[in-house]
Amino acid sequence: MINDKRSQIKKEINLENENNMMRKNQSWKRILFGAVILFAPSFIGRAWGGSSEDGSQLWLRYNKVNTCQVKTNGQSPTIDIAVRELSDYYQGPTVTLMIDKEQKEPLINDGFIIKNDTIKACNDLGLLYGAYELLRLQKEDNPLLRSKEFMRGIKSEPYYSLRLLNHWDNLDGSIERGYAGKSIFWDKDQAKLSKNNTQRLIEYARANASIGINGTVLNNVNASPKILTKPYLQEVKRIADILRPYGIRVYLSINFATPLALKQTKTADPLDKKVAEWWKKKAKDIYKLIPDFGGFLVKANSEGQPGPFDYNRSHADGANMLADALKPYGGIVMWRCFVYGAKHKGEDRVKQAVSEFQPLDGQFRDNVILQTKNGPLDFQPREPYSPIFDQIQKTPNMVELQITQEYLGQSRHLVYLAPMWREFFVYVHPNKLRAIAGVANIGDDANWCGHHFSQANWYAFGRLAWDPFLKSERIAREWLRQTFTLDKGFVEPMQRVMMESREACVNYMMPLGLHHIFSFDHHYGPEPDGFKAEYPIEWCPVYYHKADAKGIGFDRSSTGSDAVSQYREPLNKIYNDLESCPEEYLLWFHHVPWNYQMKSGLTLWQEMQEKYNSGVRDVERFCMIWDNMKPYLQNDMQRWNEVKARMDHQLENARKWRDVCLNYFGSFAKGQNAGSK
Amino acid sequence: MINDKRSQIKKEINLENENNMMRKNQSWKRILFGAVILFAPSFIGRAWGGSSEDGSQLWLRYNKVNTCQVKTNGQSPTIDIAVRELSDYYQGPTVTLMIDKEQKEPLINDGFIIKNDTIKACNDLGLLYGAYELLRLQKEDNPLLRSKEFMRGIKSEPYYSLRLLNHWDNLDGSIERGYAGKSIFWDKDQAKLSKNNTQRLIEYARANASIGINGTVLNNVNASPKILTKPYLQEVKRIADILRPYGIRVYLSINFATPLALKQTKTADPLDKKVAEWWKKKAKDIYKLIPDFGGFLVKANSEGQPGPFDYNRSHADGANMLADALKPYGGIVMWRCFVYGAKHKGEDRVKQAVSEFQPLDGQFRDNVILQTKNGPLDFQPREPYSPIFDQIQKTPNMVELQITQEYLGQSRHLVYLAPMWREFFVYVHPNKLRAIAGVANIGDDANWCGHHFSQANWYAFGRLAWDPFLKSERIAREWLRQTFTLDKGFVEPMQRVMMESREACVNYMMPLGLHHIFSFDHHYGPEPDGFKAEYPIEWCPVYYHKADAKGIGFDRSSTGSDAVSQYREPLNKIYNDLESCPEEYLLWFHHVPWNYQMKSGLTLWQEMQEKYNSGVRDVERFCMIWDNMKPYLQNDMQRWNEVKARMDHQLENARKWRDVCLNYFGSFAKGQNAGSK
Repeated sequence: MINDKRSQIKKEINLENENNMMRKNQSWKRILFGAVILFAPSFIGRAWGGSSEDGSQLWLRYNKVNTCQVKTNGQSPTIDIAVRELSDYYQGPTVTLMIDKEQKEPLINDGFIIKNDTIKACNDLGLLYGAYELLRLQKEDNPLLRSKEFMRGIKSEPYYSLRLLNHWDNLDGSIERGYAGKSIFWDKDQAKLSKNNTQRLIEYARANASIGINGTVLNNVNASPKILTKPYLQEVKRIADILRPYGIRVYLSINFATPLALKQTKTADPLDKKVAEWWKKKAKDIYKLIPDFGGFLVKANSEGQPGPFDYNRSHADGANMLADALKPYGGIVMWRCFVYGAKHKGEDRVKQAVSEFQPLDGQFRDNVILQTKNGPLDFQPREPYSPIFDQIQKTPNMVELQITQEYLGQSRHLVYLAPMWREFFVYVHPNKLRAIAGVANIGDDANWCGHHFSQANWYAFGRLAWDPFLKSERIAREWLRQTFTLDKGFVEPMQRVMMESREACVNYMMPLGLHHIFSFDHHYGPEPDGFKAEYPIEWCPVYYHKADAKGIGFDRSSTGSDAVSQYREPLNKIYNDLESCPEEYLLWFHHVPWNYQMKSGLTLWQEMQEKYNSGVRDVERFCMIWDNMKPYLQNDMQRWNEVKARMDHQLENARKWRDVCLNYFGSFAKGQNAGSK
Repeated sequence: MINDKRSQIKKEINLENENNMMRKNQSWKRILFGAVILFAPSFIGRAWGGSSEDGSQLWLRYNKVNTCQVKTNGQSPTIDIAVRELSDYYQGPTVTLMIDKEQKEPLINDGFIIKNDTIKACNDLGLLYGAYELLRLQKEDNPLLRSKEFMRGIKSEPYYSLRLLNHWDNLDGSIERGYAGKSIFWDKDQAKLSKNNTQRLIEYARANASIGINGTVLNNVNASPKILTKPYLQEVKRIADILRPYGIRVYLSINFATPLALKQTKTADPLDKKVAEWWKKKAKDIYKLIPDFGGFLVKANSEGQPGPFDYNRSHADGANMLADALKPYGGIVMWRCFVYGAKHKGEDRVKQAVSEFQPLDGQFRDNVILQTKNGPLDFQPREPYSPIFDQIQKTPNMVELQITQEYLGQSRHLVYLAPMWREFFVYVHPNKLRAIAGVANIGDDANWCGHHFSQANWYAFGRLAWDPFLKSERIAREWLRQTFTLDKGFVEPMQRVMMESREACVNYMMPLGLHHIFSFDHHYGPEPDGFKAEYPIEWCPVYYHKADAKGIGFDRSSTGSDAVSQYREPLNKIYNDLESCPEEYLLWFHHVPWNYQMKSGLTLWQEMQEKYNSGVRDVERFCMIWDNMKPYLQNDMQRWNEVKARMDHQLENARKWRDVCLNYFGSFAKGQNAGSK
């Protein structure tokens, strides 16, 4: 973060210049578009070339060309943006934007067809998405643009209709698990709507629209009741008005006990009529201000949050009461399944979500979606998928992915997450999900995400929410080509580095199914010996690795906690058997002797050393490669330097992880005839 | 070789016991089979179980069961062997061997069909091969035996009709590039036909038959004229008689100047009538003794050997003269293309074979086959394929592979060669070849090949000669399961070690297309600074790597020696362009700056360090794995110990290779801004 302040200043200077330029060149457009100008992106696309960049442009580094005549058969703030983007940045003579609701092959909402110079869609947002697709293809010099396929028309439709970011932003401007500065939405208990920040929100909306994200939860799941008070809802409305033209609906995290906390009811019991009435009234108020309000995200009876258990009611009781309140307006409830330590205290933590929710399956209203993290624990570098996706059959599911790298080196480590998410989809087919959410890594740092390469995770999340079958390699490639340079001498090695980065991180942090051996609270460095009597045992590393003289790992087989039984056939059997259990999950499911023979022929302890060492070697290699990339970024030294500083730090961390873990585990393993190096 | 003497003694003791046992149990059979007994394998299958083994049984470690009744509609020494093998070792009630020359689908010679308990073939040898197939499937507990496919019948036919071993055995009993003791054929200028060694030759024949090898060249290509003298031909006849029932024809390497050397002519000019007459007469004599004699293998005008150039005649003149002599008897000439330093002295050595032979294409008799090494240089750990296979279109080609690991750690390093040979077939489709030969790694060491794992290369050569499309993994697996144990805890890791071993060797010796930086003469250790003014420059390492202040590698592009032009389209273009040249051949084809950026993003010098280090790490891992394999070989400690000693040695060597090479090349690379580690 060393350079963030400097670059923030720089950015403001740039903006100043930019605004001047805009005033000079585009006053005619301002007159033409009138009110829409507020949402137009033209002043974002600043001139850049030889000078350093600070990463604030993300992957949208378009050169203004003003060569394109854009025709359209519709008019709306959203279409206006599409027109503006293309006329500013598309390097072609003409583009036609056509709303066509009665096509031969009907298009899914927000989908589009691009055929030569025409973009067709059945709604305004589809046209905007089509415009960004065209600009992306051009920016990354995609050969598709010159292909026969393109002449015949390419069609693109979102796989999920709900593609959401979750911001864990607190109303005081801090961000839980945020590593890139302060909230872009909130500051000192009000919405950040200074002129500068309004601009920032437009840039935010534009970036999301460019990758197809169409919803955002504006506040932390550990929600303050205040968010539902009138002054705050007014602020939310202002934000919603800014985001709306870009097709982004706002949602809010709510505190389940809000009416009680605000002292407007005497209870928060979901079956209490007054409580239900309160919520109905609240929903009405919200929709009056924000007619397209998306709905609520709820963390209830989880990590100290209030919830229906407090009144001896079920999650279904709680969710349904809220769903009934939102139903008349088309709103939804996203009810989180991240629960432990409440009703099933003492049970293996990774089993508790299924224990709690499976019996309720079928009892939820049809506008409730259960939102579950990809893994059953908590966003570890590698987890098996959460078996709730097997167990919940009648209620819609959605997955909560974490873009912010809480457990993956935060904004210090270059770790590209798309391969991790794609791994999840191997086990949970995308068609089992109704929607998808990602916990954002966005803050007010000049470059949005802290690490320039963390932008790729935001980008990849959006692209996968649109099409979960896109390959990680392709996403990395298109992101690199837009964000840095088309030069394959840069793109190919860095694509490979990105692709290998997550496995490297698993190896230097927690190979072979190890998990949650992080330092307390901040979840950054290693603390395999971590134990604090005053903390819940499920927060203590020793609870998870269970290293002892005989071996290491958490026995979740049928002779242990039996977490395996929550998985569908035949995975339950495969995981249950030490011999067939995939080695990347070995210590997740089994307590394994130090001298257990791995498939490689090494003992577990030898293999563990190999993994830790290879993770460190990978980072050493990544650092060498980044050093070699310097010539490609000669006019981009700020970004090169900032990444360089972070990679040096990552290497230092990786070595520390290895040394601390091998030293600690070695104290058990050595002398156990575990094979020596 | 520490244990070889001890194991030799042990083996002799075993044989003694075995012979006693045989005498006791099987005297009835001896009476029954009469003369054939000499060739019967029953006394090879010694009882084994708890006791140590010395590797002398190779992959033929069958338990005698005597449960099988074998019926047959033919009778011949070859069929008798098949009957004996099955009745001794096949664990089933009955097998029928059927010669069937008029099948619906005709079988290629030596092919067979196994359907349940019946083996069908169109010749005797096909039945023998079928018998060994059945025994192999049983020994390795192949599920095919219990499959529906097997019930419907499996058919197997050799891809090549000529599947030859080449022995570089000298008549004094030494072996050129032999690392497993002395010759099994020759000793002190006569055939080794003591009782013990006759038994050895039967075991040799049996082992070859079990993998389908059907020809063998008994003497070194650097051939003594003496081999064609009467006394020697008598010896050859005796060997041929031993090998014949196993379907193995004998061939001889000949010295082109034999009649002159023996002072029976005044010249060896192939166009001299008396010379031609001499060869015709010689052929007649040979075929009188050995009616199924295979033919001649000829190294002419190569590394000091005489040849037609000595009389200003061409290779075609020489080969055709010999071919004419053999033609009446069905014999062939295998004329080696391994030539350099003769007519095209000064030209890039790897180009000379094409320069010399391509103009002659079409001028050879139809019983001449050109025999060329897989690569254009000389059996390096990795070479691109020899472009002669592109350039010679009208004359039949055969490949000469080297089973003995002259340049791959000899009998000291565990290096499984099947992946290298399969890599050759990627570039030269097997259907471009008429035949296949392998330079044997067989000597009189108790375990035949020096390193127990070198046996796998003999085995793999035979299996690939039968079916070049067999996967290396499968061959390794079936070899391991027959040779050591069925236990997958042993087989799976060791299969992986075998599969990775060749790439590891390339990496710790000569990565990225480096070649021939071996110590002079013995071709074992590294000598990158090797230069001797008194030697031909093509023997000096510095000639091949050309390291200097700017970079490293041999420029064979169109701006260099233009060796690339000998390759077919589009490979010539791909190799010629530094950017598209596969990196495993980079320094073979190009002189490359030390700071050249590799595809990984590392500089050449960094990548070179990575490769050397990763090769060493691989061997470290192989050693750990072998240590861990000890429990599987608790009753097989001799073999475990012998392999262990060699692997320790290999690791020491690998480290030396890395250190010597990085130290030497580093003296050029460092300070060249080649990227630092």
